[in-house]
Amino acid sequence: MNPDNLKKLLESLSDGQVSVDQALERLATLPYEDLDIACLDHHRQLRQGAPETILGASKTAIQMITIVAAMLRRDSNVLITRLDEDKAAQLLAEYPQGVYDSEARTFSLIQNPIEITGLGKILVVCAGTSDLPVAREAAETARMLGNEVEELVDVGVAGIHRLFDRLDLLRSAAVVIVVAGMEGALPSVIGGLVASPVIAVPTSVGYGASFGGIAALLGMLNSCASGVTVVNIDNGFGAACAAARINRRNSS
Amino acid sequence: MNPDNLKKLLESLSDGQVSVDQALERLATLPYEDLDIACLDHHRQLRQGAPETILGASKTAIQMITIVAAMLRRDSNVLITRLDEDKAAQLLAEYPQGVYDSEARTFSLIQNPIEITGLGKILVVCAGTSDLPVAREAAETARMLGNEVEELVDVGVAGIHRLFDRLDLLRSAAVVIVVAGMEGALPSVIGGLVASPVIAVPTSVGYGASFGGIAALLGMLNSCASGVTVVNIDNGFGAACAAARINRRNSS
Amino acid sequence: MNPDNLKKLLESLSDGQVSVDQALERLATLPYEDLDIACLDHHRQLRQGAPETILGASKTAIQMITIVAAMLRRDSNVLITRLDEDKAAQLLAEYPQGVYDSEARTFSLIQNPIEITGLGKILVVCAGTSDLPVAREAAETARMLGNEVEELVDVGVAGIHRLFDRLDLLRSAAVVIVVAGMEGALPSVIGGLVASPVIAVPTSVGYGASFGGIAALLGMLNSCASGVTVVNIDNGFGAACAAARINRRNSS
Amino acid sequence: MNPDNLKKLLESLSDGQVSVDQALERLATLPYEDLDIACLDHHRQLRQGAPETILGASKTAIQMITIVAAMLRRDSNVLITRLDEDKAAQLLAEYPQGVYDSEARTFSLIQNPIEITGLGKILVVCAGTSDLPVAREAAETARMLGNEVEELVDVGVAGIHRLFDRLDLLRSAAVVIVVAGMEGALPSVIGGLVASPVIAVPTSVGYGASFGGIAALLGMLNSCASGVTVVNIDNGFGAACAAARINRRNSS
Amino acid sequence: MNPDNLKKLLESLSDGQVSVDQALERLATLPYEDLDIACLDHHRQLRQGAPETILGASKTAIQMITIVAAMLRRDSNVLITRLDEDKAAQLLAEYPQGVYDSEARTFSLIQNPIEITGLGKILVVCAGTSDLPVAREAAETARMLGNEVEELVDVGVAGIHRLFDRLDLLRSAAVVIVVAGMEGALPSVIGGLVASPVIAVPTSVGYGASFGGIAALLGMLNSCASGVTVVNIDNGFGAACAAARINRRNSS
Amino acid sequence: MNPDNLKKLLESLSDGQVSVDQALERLATLPYEDLDIACLDHHRQLRQGAPETILGASKTAIQMITIVAAMLRRDSNVLITRLDEDKAAQLLAEYPQGVYDSEARTFSLIQNPIEITGLGKILVVCAGTSDLPVAREAAETARMLGNEVEELVDVGVAGIHRLFDRLDLLRSAAVVIVVAGMEGALPSVIGGLVASPVIAVPTSVGYGASFGGIAALLGMLNSCASGVTVVNIDNGFGAACAAARINRRNSS
Amino acid sequence: MNPDNLKKLLESLSDGQVSVDQALERLATLPYEDLDIACLDHHRQLRQGAPETILGASKTAIQMITIVAAMLRRDSNVLITRLDEDKAAQLLAEYPQGVYDSEARTFSLIQNPIEITGLGKILVVCAGTSDLPVAREAAETARMLGNEVEELVDVGVAGIHRLFDRLDLLRSAAVVIVVAGMEGALPSVIGGLVASPVIAVPTSVGYGASFGGIAALLGMLNSCASGVTVVNIDNGFGAACAAARINRRNSS
Amino acid sequence: MNPDNLKKLLESLSDGQVSVDQALERLATLPYEDLDIACLDHHRQLRQGAPETILGASKTAIQMITIVAAMLRRDSNVLITRLDEDKAAQLLAEYPQGVYDSEARTFSLIQNPIEITGLGKILVVCAGTSDLPVAREAAETARMLGNEVEELVDVGVAGIHRLFDRLDLLRSAAVVIVVAGMEGALPSVIGGLVASPVIAVPTSVGYGASFGGIAALLGMLNSCASGVTVVNIDNGFGAACAAARINRRNSS
Repeated sequence: MNPDNLKKLLESLSDGQVSVDQALERLATLPYEDLDIACLDHHRQLRQGAPETILGASKTAIQMITIVAAMLRRDSNVLITRLDEDKAAQLLAEYPQGVYDSEARTFSLIQNPIEITGLGKILVVCAGTSDLPVAREAAETARMLGNEVEELVDVGVAGIHRLFDRLDLLRSAAVVIVVAGMEGALPSVIGGLVASPVIAVPTSVGYGASFGGIAALLGMLNSCASGVTVVNIDNGFGAACAAARINRRNSS
Repeated sequence: MNPDNLKKLLESLSDGQVSVDQALERLATLPYEDLDIACLDHHRQLRQGAPETILGASKTAIQMITIVAAMLRRDSNVLITRLDEDKAAQLLAEYPQGVYDSEARTFSLIQNPIEITGLGKILVVCAGTSDLPVAREAAETARMLGNEVEELVDVGVAGIHRLFDRLDLLRSAAVVIVVAGMEGALPSVIGGLVASPVIAVPTSVGYGASFGGIAALLGMLNSCASGVTVVNIDNGFGAACAAARINRRNSS
Repeated sequence: MNPDNLKKLLESLSDGQVSVDQALERLATLPYEDLDIACLDHHRQLRQGAPETILGASKTAIQMITIVAAMLRRDSNVLITRLDEDKAAQLLAEYPQGVYDSEARTFSLIQNPIEITGLGKILVVCAGTSDLPVAREAAETARMLGNEVEELVDVGVAGIHRLFDRLDLLRSAAVVIVVAGMEGALPSVIGGLVASPVIAVPTSVGYGASFGGIAALLGMLNSCASGVTVVNIDNGFGAACAAARINRRNSS
Repeated sequence: MNPDNLKKLLESLSDGQVSVDQALERLATLPYEDLDIACLDHHRQLRQGAPETILGASKTAIQMITIVAAMLRRDSNVLITRLDEDKAAQLLAEYPQGVYDSEARTFSLIQNPIEITGLGKILVVCAGTSDLPVAREAAETARMLGNEVEELVDVGVAGIHRLFDRLDLLRSAAVVIVVAGMEGALPSVIGGLVASPVIAVPTSVGYGASFGGIAALLGMLNSCASGVTVVNIDNGFGAACAAARINRRNSS
Repeated sequence: MNPDNLKKLLESLSDGQVSVDQALERLATLPYEDLDIACLDHHRQLRQGAPETILGASKTAIQMITIVAAMLRRDSNVLITRLDEDKAAQLLAEYPQGVYDSEARTFSLIQNPIEITGLGKILVVCAGTSDLPVAREAAETARMLGNEVEELVDVGVAGIHRLFDRLDLLRSAAVVIVVAGMEGALPSVIGGLVASPVIAVPTSVGYGASFGGIAALLGMLNSCASGVTVVNIDNGFGAACAAARINRRNSS
Repeated sequence: MNPDNLKKLLESLSDGQVSVDQALERLATLPYEDLDIACLDHHRQLRQGAPETILGASKTAIQMITIVAAMLRRDSNVLITRLDEDKAAQLLAEYPQGVYDSEARTFSLIQNPIEITGLGKILVVCAGTSDLPVAREAAETARMLGNEVEELVDVGVAGIHRLFDRLDLLRSAAVVIVVAGMEGALPSVIGGLVASPVIAVPTSVGYGASFGGIAALLGMLNSCASGVTVVNIDNGFGAACAAARINRRNSS
Repeated sequence: MNPDNLKKLLESLSDGQVSVDQALERLATLPYEDLDIACLDHHRQLRQGAPETILGASKTAIQMITIVAAMLRRDSNVLITRLDEDKAAQLLAEYPQGVYDSEARTFSLIQNPIEITGLGKILVVCAGTSDLPVAREAAETARMLGNEVEELVDVGVAGIHRLFDRLDLLRSAAVVIVVAGMEGALPSVIGGLVASPVIAVPTSVGYGASFGGIAALLGMLNSCASGVTVVNIDNGFGAACAAARINRRNSS
Repeated sequence: MNPDNLKKLLESLSDGQVSVDQALERLATLPYEDLDIACLDHHRQLRQGAPETILGASKTAIQMITIVAAMLRRDSNVLITRLDEDKAAQLLAEYPQGVYDSEARTFSLIQNPIEITGLGKILVVCAGTSDLPVAREAAETARMLGNEVEELVDVGVAGIHRLFDRLDLLRSAAVVIVVAGMEGALPSVIGGLVASPVIAVPTSVGYGASFGGIAALLGMLNSCASGVTVVNIDNGFGAACAAARINRRNSS
């Protein structure tokens, strides 16, 4: 809000053209609406049935049950990520209408049907079966954020022909999320085959000098395919959020 | 291309239903068209006047002059990045029609007018004046790739109010590239303020425990703002390529 | 104690101007008082009811019970940090008058009422609920050291507006301890908003490339806000000790 | 600024009790004054003759001459840090009234006499002569920020007796900045000897496994003396800013 | 396959010189045979009774039982590596004809007798008894891949004379796999004693600054004996695959 | 040599069955022949015209001239690696019959024609033109060691089709050396396409998070293609030595 | 053994001047005695009642029971280090005459009284109670190796006066082993106070940026006290072996 | 000095049994003599002609000339290490009686003949010619400290037989300093061959994954030969100081 606009607003108030309440509303909303949107377009998401999310890893079941209760009161859909089986059991006991995906390690509770608002299809590709939990977290999150999602599993670099058999699918996606551990080369290959945005997710799959995903992370950051971007190790959730930002771009 | 389709094609050729040239075209394009596109949508870019690019850092001036000559024969626009002043002087001596931007360290030679094909505006934000070279490389690359670009300089986290004064600009962008060194916190703040895709570029600006950009890189990978993606340290070029992928999404 | 003073003292003794006991006292206190004070102003703290502290992590319950017994004989208040629930139960069985804070993981046993000796208020801010244990350890320690403490929870960088709503509180503190994991950007923002000393505490909260708090630590060390200082990862205790040093400055 | 206050202000404007300009000023200053203060209490410093500072390392002489010109127009004192001799010569040619300290690598230009506003004395201690540039940067910065500063040089851990000879000096300081390279043990020892705040500055002095200051940095972060805080490697400037924050605490 | 050859093939088909099936065979084999062979010469191995392999570490027993079932239907031999005892018990309950080697942590199920196809002997040397699991994994894998294997245990660098007593054995091998933890010096010594290929396998054996095998890995990468190659930490399986590639070289 | 054999030999000498010279020869050759061979089959190489090699990086021109003189007296061929242009000029001034390859940075001086003794062809593949110096060092070394060598340049992962066009060449090699920087993915892809031994050489090409070749090194160590082995960063010489060991295997 | 000597020996045998057995003895002892001594002066130790040692960490109880049985047959004393309580119980059940020290985590079985052969006293100093297990391992090992050992506990850098009270003890030692975690500064201080050899042992005690002992290790490697040497993290055993080497020096 | 002794001394003074000067002397020497000795037995060294040393790397020629002047006034011998040729030239111009060793990079100026006070011989072994500067620094320092020194060059692990030819020399040394870069395996081998103290010095020789000496450092810390101790990378000076401590042990 630049000074000119602010001055005009105050003059209108002084002149009686706008009421105190109107001025208050506008003033309150200018900086605050801006800021309120911080949680990744919070309001719009609520209108569209998008979820509120909780990172389950560092919270107790009790804490999460409390938070979910508050979310339900706000009539939100709920998505919990990184939820282990023990805590999931306690949440399901409390909220039997929720669904726990043991592979994705997500708990979702849908109060309002999810409306597909993403413009295109988000494709989640993963290199090996060991990368599946991260890929599934990405897919589940992207779906909860209102996107059409397709998954393509087990197309590693050492068996490239399986990838070439699916070029049509790769090319049909609006955004491609590529999940890979070990040397993390898959995003480079896919980045060379498609023109759409490619988001690389390194996983902690591997052993020895994979260093819990650092090898894959470095491989992806140094990709020879221009324009591949990267998120944190095992961060399927973040990749899906990034894909969702891209996939609703026109609405901005 | 599955075996059934392949067999049908060959039977049609054997039957005379398709000509040798038609079969050749189909066979050639299936795997090869797929692959030929590897260089990030090479053909379409050529049609649109997009550049061919050279990473200047590890090449001699002689090598680059040779490569540029070949590009010019293909009627391409040319973009060289990471070009120091000495080599730039040699290139300009050979190709006086080129332009060297000493801040972005880019050399560009435009034979065909650049057509704006990007759907929205790409905004390049940088935290400090020391981050300018990387920001300028991103901006120059994005422009050469056919995008409208705007730059916003010197809006660091320790002086957040300068950022809030430009919220309208931030919100108007289709994609935001955020360039920052030191602790790399700016993308987190911006990621919380806009709903559009945010690409974070860590820079090697800093000293001591910044470790040549690692601190900023880690900060960005661990951003608490969901959906921020990251490219390699100082990789303004890569960030622009990623932004361009996003900004032409609808054309896929 | 320079040689001249020493010689004068000895001459006074030789002359009978001071007694053996007086000389002994002075000699004993010069180097030794200096050194005796090593444990962070041990004597003064005892006079003021400040605690003796134990790092519980690497000690057995038996060892701690023995140490606490000795402390109680010295009439000290006792503070144990990094105490897990199992050991806490054993300590409480032995010392039911003690209090265990399961979130801060501290055990405190107050024999002498704690006198507020700190000059101002110490504010402990933390970014997320996952950072709470470290923040609580800092708050509990600061209180035991004789300071007024206030806590401000869950004001992360991605939702900056919540921070701006509390500017008065931030500004009212004599010292601000800022606890944050992930990218560790919060101290930079707060360091830009207040003029008082800011002590940053990185936490091991996060995953993947957070590397157990290294990302946050590096972010804080490279803060663009001048004059932010840092303590070890998860070291809420150390931050409180530093804040207490600052907050009693005038008494030196 | 809470909603109640905002409403009252708007009602006063609506009632004619305050003018548009008065309301504008108050509104502008509330959030903005907060934010304007970002540069470490900018306004107060200007009133007191405190400097504006430039990090010289990553700027050209031309850029700095331009920035200094603007500062002089604002009637500020100027402090440039990390300035090498070549650039210093160019600045001195332009501003002969400035002073270059080749050891501290600082350029200072004082238009308004520096008023001592710090409450106590800041003591800068350094372990070896090789640490002197960083210690001098800290001392020079602290002086420019309005503090009384004393320096104590070459009191390393391997010759502890030299340290004990200066205990009175150590104890007389309101804040102690300890600068050390190699294993960085000096702050631990001093932290055990004084009760005042101790700020540790690791330096990049050393070789081999000192890793450009990492060994010293880690040593300081893991100090067994409670309440020692740390700044970035070689960051004498930052340590002085932190000391200045502490030393004016009562004025908040 | 260059375009000329492709055109000729299609013309021959169009002319009736080759049949559809012949053309199909040639076309299918060119790119696809190339690619199909990706799994390290899959077809030839099947003909020779070589195993299909599963990395057991990141799979559940249920997943592995399913995969083994599919392998058995393809009449393959099966090798599972990194299999812990619990999962092994479940596999043995399902497939009692399999064999679990608790030291090598491998499960093997041989349906077709293994034909020795390797040209020479593969020797697996290990430095200490703690390195045995990795050495055994290498030996077991190499045997399953159709090689004659011999093992030489506990010949460390600090007791070099034990090594010299076995020079004849060392020299008789076609390929030597050297497994060592701690400082990883054994491959350097052996690399200086034999002229045959030496493959070094660092192990995670050690403590402290061995960093889970990094010390051994770096030692091997920096070997002063020219021509030693290295695989990932603890990767006995990969070393055996590399040795098998070398040992069948003539068949290419 | 076990004690029994030794005793028999001495008894034969004592009995006059063997002469002193015969005994001397056998005794001398047992441990010593073994050891003398340390320099990678030194004697055989000399007979075959293979070179003696010098690592030029850390030696002065004077030192190298002295060493070369000694080598020439032994009638050896000479190979110097890592030789910069300045030192090369001094060596050429002294030994004009030598040849300096400025790209490979090798100096070779052939006194005895090199006999091709390798069994098959060694293929050196590199991903980008920036990797050429390392690839050329490997090729030149392999040639000097008596091998037929072919080079394949600029077949990166992001443009995989160029690789598929050269499958025949890849398959025709007895050993493949793959040189790649950045993410180092090329060996994984090639390892999946050929059945012969693959030696991966990471290069220090790249910037930012490539960390001077660490990203490529980790990528290669974690290759998903089984049986790829790795040498040190930029170690073209070592890769050639390893390839030569493999390529003369039958001669052992 | 140079060729001349060898020839003379053989000639003497041939001439009948020495017998086969004499020649055998000389030949056997030259290279082999050299090598046989590899296990740190194995034979002499046995004569003196020194122990054979086992690193217990990576062995099963069964394995160790077997090894101990063999040692007992050789009439050796036995020392097992890094032995956890469970395995210790099994060893004690088998060898009740052994002694388990749960703090040092050592198992010792003395068949032959230990003769004190060390020339002076070995002093083991440790900084904190948490460092005790490593200090005790060092002390126990040094005693088993035939040395007089004294221990000095809990004399940290932050409370230096406790150290000064024990200067006489420090000065009386022939070798000082200093065990410390956290910042590892104690060896620097002690190295400055004594003229005898100082061996520093970093421990993994600490948290956060202590990185499992790396901070202490780096601190010790960078010690400003000249002539301090370092062993691996937590390697009390190795420090004792080094001290024993020094303490028997005259016997060489 | 315990309180009882102190009281007795004071009583004696009070009684007139000792004079003020006698008391002063005793008091002054107790803590201070202890501390004064900090610089590694400073006084004794001066009496024996041992040098005062300067680390030349981080000092200017001017600074060193000043320091040397002071040393000469104290009649000391002088040793400067890490001195490059330019500064050496300036020192030689000022002090032509000094000697510069360009390989060891040391400057020595001997005013008082060096008396051999070390008990035995210190042997400095180095693996390759590239390690020579560090080995020479160690040898030169050890000589200046009053020891007999012998050097053994170029006995690397890959050519172990050269080492075995010198076993007599290795065994004759009282202390062995082993200098090695690359994988740093030489100290392990030598540690297995001799019973005397072995001090390992990693050098920064190597490239790629040698990481400036880290590979060698880690190799040495993880040595399988018990009782090898380590100093910092390239720290020949420190190794010599440690050897000197060991070699004068009996004098304590």
